Amino acid sequence: MKTYAPVTEEVIEALKGVVGAEYVLNDAETLEHYQTDEETDCRKFHKPEVVVKPANAEEIAEIMKLANKFDVPVTVRSAGTSLADGAIPVYGGIVLLMERLNKVLELNTEGMYLVTEAGVPTIDIQKMANEAGYLYAGDPCSADSCLIGGNLATNAGGNKAVRYGTTRDQVHEIEFVSPTGEIIEVGARLKKCSTGYCLEQLIMGSEGTLGIITKATLKLLPLCPYKFDLVAVFTDPDKAIDLVPLLLKAGIDPTSIEYMDNTYVRTTADYCEYKNVPHYEDGIYVIVTVETYNEDELDMKMERLDELCTEAGAVEVLEADERIWRMRRNCQESVRLISLVSLTDDVVVPRDKVADAVKFVMKTGEKYPFTPLICAHVGDGNLHIVLCKCDLTDEEWEQNVQAFHDEVYTYAYSIGGRLAGEHGIGAKKLKEMEKYTRPGELNLMRTIKKAMDPKCILNPGKIFNMD
Amino acid sequence: MKTYAPVTEEVIEALKGVVGAEYVLNDAETLEHYQTDEETDCRKFHKPEVVVKPANAEEIAEIMKLANKFDVPVTVRSAGTSLADGAIPVYGGIVLLMERLNKVLELNTEGMYLVTEAGVPTIDIQKMANEAGYLYAGDPCSADSCLIGGNLATNAGGNKAVRYGTTRDQVHEIEFVSPTGEIIEVGARLKKCSTGYCLEQLIMGSEGTLGIITKATLKLLPLCPYKFDLVAVFTDPDKAIDLVPLLLKAGIDPTSIEYMDNTYVRTTADYCEYKNVPHYEDGIYVIVTVETYNEDELDMKMERLDELCTEAGAVEVLEADERIWRMRRNCQESVRLISLVSLTDDVVVPRDKVADAVKFVMKTGEKYPFTPLICAHVGDGNLHIVLCKCDLTDEEWEQNVQAFHDEVYTYAYSIGGRLAGEHGIGAKKLKEMEKYTRPGELNLMRTIKKAMDPKCILNPGKIFNMD
Repeated sequence: MKTYAPVTEEVIEALKGVVGAEYVLNDAETLEHYQTDEETDCRKFHKPEVVVKPANAEEIAEIMKLANKFDVPVTVRSAGTSLADGAIPVYGGIVLLMERLNKVLELNTEGMYLVTEAGVPTIDIQKMANEAGYLYAGDPCSADSCLIGGNLATNAGGNKAVRYGTTRDQVHEIEFVSPTGEIIEVGARLKKCSTGYCLEQLIMGSEGTLGIITKATLKLLPLCPYKFDLVAVFTDPDKAIDLVPLLLKAGIDPTSIEYMDNTYVRTTADYCEYKNVPHYEDGIYVIVTVETYNEDELDMKMERLDELCTEAGAVEVLEADERIWRMRRNCQESVRLISLVSLTDDVVVPRDKVADAVKFVMKTGEKYPFTPLICAHVGDGNLHIVLCKCDLTDEEWEQNVQAFHDEVYTYAYSIGGRLAGEHGIGAKKLKEMEKYTRPGELNLMRTIKKAMDPKCILNPGKIFNMD
Repeated sequence: MKTYAPVTEEVIEALKGVVGAEYVLNDAETLEHYQTDEETDCRKFHKPEVVVKPANAEEIAEIMKLANKFDVPVTVRSAGTSLADGAIPVYGGIVLLMERLNKVLELNTEGMYLVTEAGVPTIDIQKMANEAGYLYAGDPCSADSCLIGGNLATNAGGNKAVRYGTTRDQVHEIEFVSPTGEIIEVGARLKKCSTGYCLEQLIMGSEGTLGIITKATLKLLPLCPYKFDLVAVFTDPDKAIDLVPLLLKAGIDPTSIEYMDNTYVRTTADYCEYKNVPHYEDGIYVIVTVETYNEDELDMKMERLDELCTEAGAVEVLEADERIWRMRRNCQESVRLISLVSLTDDVVVPRDKVADAVKFVMKTGEKYPFTPLICAHVGDGNLHIVLCKCDLTDEEWEQNVQAFHDEVYTYAYSIGGRLAGEHGIGAKKLKEMEKYTRPGELNLMRTIKKAMDPKCILNPGKIFNMD
């Protein structure tokens, strides 16, 4: 493993020369604050040596040149909402904050696009698009707290991916700073292009290891004026899950299909303090959203959907009111009612295998001293499996988590799945990434990383190690 | 420019050892046959020194290892339908044919995918999908003569790109042989993934410079049972072209929007020997296809479309029968009635700029001794501008083509366009690629090429030069 140079006084002074003294912070409190992101396990924390707040791509480019010159690692931090230790400076060095790149530069309704700097909150982009009558279809569950640059870097997913795809599908063009400090624009605002390599898709989803995204041109879509949300309540998990492939093939083009197992139904209802939610004791919920441009089309699709749910064995088919969605949104939070310590997974499988995968997870869980809870973006094959520590000892917990993950990941890869559907690999799943990824593919990732970042300055210790 | 070693008897023997003597050809007739693709200008021809026909990825990997060892360039040839000199072995060496990788390995309706080797004709894949009740949405105009591997390598477009995107949007996963001879699988059959770099999109569209695609898992979509084709006839080109943005914003989700100027209307009608086509003398055609899963939805969309066309100033709105589509398909061929020598362009612009671009091309054309003909995949901003030599001298022709292209490309890039929407760059537009591409972007393409193909063995002289 590479050893980096320390951040010396000379480095600090040089950084101040680039961004101004007020934007270079190395007081104890700041360094402690940036030692983690959403990670709560302090064994995973790493303090940076200095935190910088550049104003623009030019300053970021200068910082990268300095970092290369002084052989100091740089970790980029967006809003710090990573669930994969993505913003933790594993090797210390510089933490680079994107929050000052906070301007939306253009909203063009004629061309249906929006140009934004990377530090703009995703929710602001969504709102601004909506107010202009358009949809920005990227919608990670953390939309109200994350920044768009982090979405781009991790290819964030969310609830609308079934219909609209993930963040990488919402982008025309990006500007980024390379690991060696060049400002590069890639991509184009085109529906069709066969003019050289598709570099924008390479940079997006690379979790900041191949470049620091500073600006993006995002696609806007016409806003669907008509919408319905429906919850199909099942008492048989197999029937619930078997509904999904039917929905995907029926030409309904759903915006989202979400799944909550009965433990989640009970826990989130308790957490939200709701009485009388449908089938509290034995209900499994499949929530479906459909949006259309036309009222008649909505009616037709609603009717078809209702038929499908009933045929599949739903015991009730109801409108998914705000209560149901609030329960869904509070899945993560509500787990605290069961256990203060828990772990969320992000495994993703082919959509036609999702029923098998849920069944496998449920069955596998029976062998362990915890019951896995499952809430899932089931329409796109992405499962969040939550394990609760409850009163296990640290040792029992870790052994069991490890063994459970080994079983689940091995199974997921055997059916064509992957470790992460939307959270990324970060530092958290680096070892698993190296274990489960095909050697040729992993080797090619390293070849590209090495070519673009010869000194491994940018976000080291993320996705995979270099040696 | 690099100088390669010649293909010696030793190389030939080594190749025979890999693929068998019968699949190594270097007779004069074969070498002459493979000196060109769709290119007719013999000044662009280059003869290979040897032609090999491997059976599978393993043999291709061995060939690449040999080529690196002997420092001999390899040019991959799919069906040879390139309009960009993509299959011409610019530096001689080995031409590698993909035609023996000709098996569809799996069609899975449950998972809605199809696994194919690279040498399968695209039309066979389309038919096989259709027969199973599914759509393979890649549909280049050359579908009945091209092979799927070439589509993947060039990110081929076609008539359905408005709704379904281009070839790269139809792919889950690919297997390819790297320039140094490793067999690598990238991508996954997932709707959502945030597990390392997006390498499949990097390899696709790289026109065989980063790898030889040997196998692909393609997406299948539910087949739309309902469809209509409509032609809106205009007599004012501005009004015709101004219809396009309205169509794209109306929530109709058209499958294709095609444009034929009046010269094309007349020429293709003559070529097809059709009498009484609508507005032969002054008509400009905008052809629109809409497909739906539901008959009522079709009716609604047809009605809305009819309104839009009439509001936009169409003088007639008719069903686009087989005659109209035959005219559209024969645009390229019919040009011969005007001139035996002609040049087709492939410039692509943002969709909201396509009206301006068509107007610019028409106006710019007035200065030149040829009238540019325009047929366009106008719904995705992709213009095929055809220039006819007629009775110009060679010198006049070349000077004027050059000057016209300079104007058009400069304009296209100024509005965010690119050189090629679907034909690729190949050897034909390499100089323009180097001239118009942003230096940082071009430099990054070279960095990646250099890292993956250090000796520049695979498809040299395509897209850009290395020094």
